[in-house]
Amino acid sequence: MSELLRIAIKDLEAFVARAYVAVGISAAEAKNIAELQVRADLIGADGHGVFRLPQYVRRIKGQAVNLKPDIRVEREAPGMALVNGDNGMGHLVMRFATEKAIEKAKTVGVAWVGVQNSNHAGPASLYASMPMAHDMIGLYLAVGNANHLPPWGGIDMLLSTNPIAVAVPAGQEPPIVLDMATTVAAYGKVKTKAQRGEMMPEGWMMDRQGQPLFDPKKSNEGFLLPIGGYKGYGLSMIIGLLAGTLNGAANGRNVVDFNVDDTTPTNTGHVIVAINVAMFQPVAEFKQSVDAFVRDIRNSQRLPGVEAIRLPGEGSHARLEESLRLGAPLSAPLLKSLNDLAAELKIPALS
Amino acid sequence: MSELLRIAIKDLEAFVARAYVAVGISAAEAKNIAELQVRADLIGADGHGVFRLPQYVRRIKGQAVNLKPDIRVEREAPGMALVNGDNGMGHLVMRFATEKAIEKAKTVGVAWVGVQNSNHAGPASLYASMPMAHDMIGLYLAVGNANHLPPWGGIDMLLSTNPIAVAVPAGQEPPIVLDMATTVAAYGKVKTKAQRGEMMPEGWMMDRQGQPLFDPKKSNEGFLLPIGGYKGYGLSMIIGLLAGTLNGAANGRNVVDFNVDDTTPTNTGHVIVAINVAMFQPVAEFKQSVDAFVRDIRNSQRLPGVEAIRLPGEGSHARLEESLRLGAPLSAPLLKSLNDLAAELKIPALS
Repeated sequence: MSELLRIAIKDLEAFVARAYVAVGISAAEAKNIAELQVRADLIGADGHGVFRLPQYVRRIKGQAVNLKPDIRVEREAPGMALVNGDNGMGHLVMRFATEKAIEKAKTVGVAWVGVQNSNHAGPASLYASMPMAHDMIGLYLAVGNANHLPPWGGIDMLLSTNPIAVAVPAGQEPPIVLDMATTVAAYGKVKTKAQRGEMMPEGWMMDRQGQPLFDPKKSNEGFLLPIGGYKGYGLSMIIGLLAGTLNGAANGRNVVDFNVDDTTPTNTGHVIVAINVAMFQPVAEFKQSVDAFVRDIRNSQRLPGVEAIRLPGEGSHARLEESLRLGAPLSAPLLKSLNDLAAELKIPALS
Repeated sequence: MSELLRIAIKDLEAFVARAYVAVGISAAEAKNIAELQVRADLIGADGHGVFRLPQYVRRIKGQAVNLKPDIRVEREAPGMALVNGDNGMGHLVMRFATEKAIEKAKTVGVAWVGVQNSNHAGPASLYASMPMAHDMIGLYLAVGNANHLPPWGGIDMLLSTNPIAVAVPAGQEPPIVLDMATTVAAYGKVKTKAQRGEMMPEGWMMDRQGQPLFDPKKSNEGFLLPIGGYKGYGLSMIIGLLAGTLNGAANGRNVVDFNVDDTTPTNTGHVIVAINVAMFQPVAEFKQSVDAFVRDIRNSQRLPGVEAIRLPGEGSHARLEESLRLGAPLSAPLLKSLNDLAAELKIPALS
C-alpha cells in the first residue's frame, strides 16, 4: 500500500463542505454530507469516502441529483415506512430514513424503512451503526450503483455488489460491525487499487472468457465474483429485491452505472432496519452476552501461523481511533484529485 | 448419487406421524410435524427431512424435548414479538412463530418475530416460504444445532452453519427462494454424504492442521469452511447474535450439539420476518417486476460450457414437482434406518 498523508479532520470536512456549497448545496446540508463522507475515510472505507467527491460533483453538475429535495415518507404503517428521497444526495436521504427507523423502533420494537429515489450514500456501515447510540441493532441493505456482477454462470451484468451491514452494540468490547459486499471485492476497492497503481489478487474479478483479471484499469473487460459462488449470487439477488424492487427502486437492468453516467438519476434503493434491544431483553444483559461471545471468539485457539482472531468491525474501529489521533488519511493521488477539483470549483486547495 | 426409491407421500407422512405418536406426541401435533418434515424431502432438502427422524426420536426418549409445550408470546410490541417455544418440537414452535409474524404484518407492514427455547425445525426455507401465501416476503434466520465452524483463523468450534432463507413471491415465474448455510456445505449435507458412502469435494471441510478433509465419516476431525472466508464467518456471527443472543437463545459456546447429545434442551433460537408487499406497492406490480427480473437473469448470455442459468429455489421447485408426481424420494440406507426405527417403536414398517 502506498504511503498515506494525514490531514486534520475538520479541515477535510470543511473542504468537502465548501465543494458542495460551490455547486449549489445549502451550507447546512453540505456540512451534513461532508461529515458522513469524511467518516468513511476515518474508518478505512476509503473506496466510499472523499475519493467519491469529484464523481459526486460531476453528477451534480450533470443535473443527475436534486439539490433541493423534498425527502419524505411516502407510505407508512406501524412496523415500516417507505421513504422517497426525491433524488437528493444519498447521505441526506439515508440519514433521514435511519432517524425515521430509530424513532419508530422506540415504540414498535423493530422498524423496517425502505428507501426509493435515493443516491449513492457511502459505506453501508455508516447507517447500520447509527441505531447503536439508542441501544438498537442496525441492519442496512442497498442496491449498488453499478452492475458488475453477472448471474452465476452468466456474463450479462445484471447484479451489483449489493452490500449488507449489521451493527450490534456491545458493552466493554467494541461493537460488532459487519459491512460486506456480496462480491469478493467491492467495486470501490477496485477503483482504489487502480488509483494507487496496484494489481488485484486472483479471485476478485474474471473476464468474459472465465479467466482471472488482475489489472484494475481493465475492470471494464470483466466482472466481479460473488462470495461463495452461487450463494453470493443468490444473496445479491435477494438484497436487490428487498432494497430495490420492493421499494420501487432500481434493480437489475434498471441500475444506472454512476461511474460513467453523469446525467441520469439512479433511483437508488436502500433498507434500514432498527431493532430495539430493550424490547427483547434488558439491554445490560444483552451487552454482557455480546461481550462474552466476543471474548470467546477472540480467545479461540488459532490455526498454525495465525497471529490473532479478528472480529467484524475491529479493523474499522482501530482505524477510526488512529484517524482521530493522527488525522484523516489521504493518499497522494487522492490529494491531487481533490486539489484539481478545488481549482475547477475555484475554492481553496487542501495544503 | 445413489438410486432413489419413491414412496407415496401420504404413506411417508403417516409413518412419520405414527413414530411421533409412539413416543408420546398428540396425533394432531404429530401430523403437523410429519407434514413439515416430509416436505423437506419433497423439495430435496433431505439433510433436514425424514433423515432426522431417528435422531429426533432419540432426543424425545432422552427427555431433551418437551412433548406438551406451552408455546407462547413472551414479549410483544407492534413490530415484533418474542416467542417462547417452551422446548417444544421446533416445527411446531416455528409454525406458531411464523403465523404470528404473518398475522402482525397484515396490519403493521413488517413484523419481526424472535424465538427462544425452540429446537431443530428442519430446512430454513419451510418457514421463509409460508408468508408467500399471503403475498408477503419471508425472511428466516436460525442458530444451527451444532457448532462446526471456528472463527476465521481459529480452531475452536464456536459458530454454527447459521442459515438464512428468504422467499420472494413472483407472478408467472416460480418464487425466488434462497436457503443457504453460511458455510460452504451445511452439516446435514455432510451427514447425507456419510450415509451414502460418498466423499466430500475439497472446500467443504478442513482439519485442525488446515488440510482439506474429504471423508465425511471423519467429520469430527475437522470443521466446516465459511463462504467467502472471513465474510461468511462474519455473517454466521451476525445471524448467531440476531437469532440466538438477542432472543435469549443459545449462541457460541452455549450451543448444544444435538447430533451427539440426546438429553440436553438446545434452547434453539430463530427469527422469522414477514414483509407485507402491499404496504410498499400494489402486489400485482411487484410480482410483474419480480417476473421481469427473473427473466432477465435467466436469459443472460452464458459463460462457455454453462447450459443454463439457475435461480435460487428453482431446483427445489423442480424437485417438489417431481416428488408430487413420483412420490417422496428415499435412499435405500434411509429406508433401512426408518424400518429399524419402526421395529424399535413397534409400529408397522414402510414397505
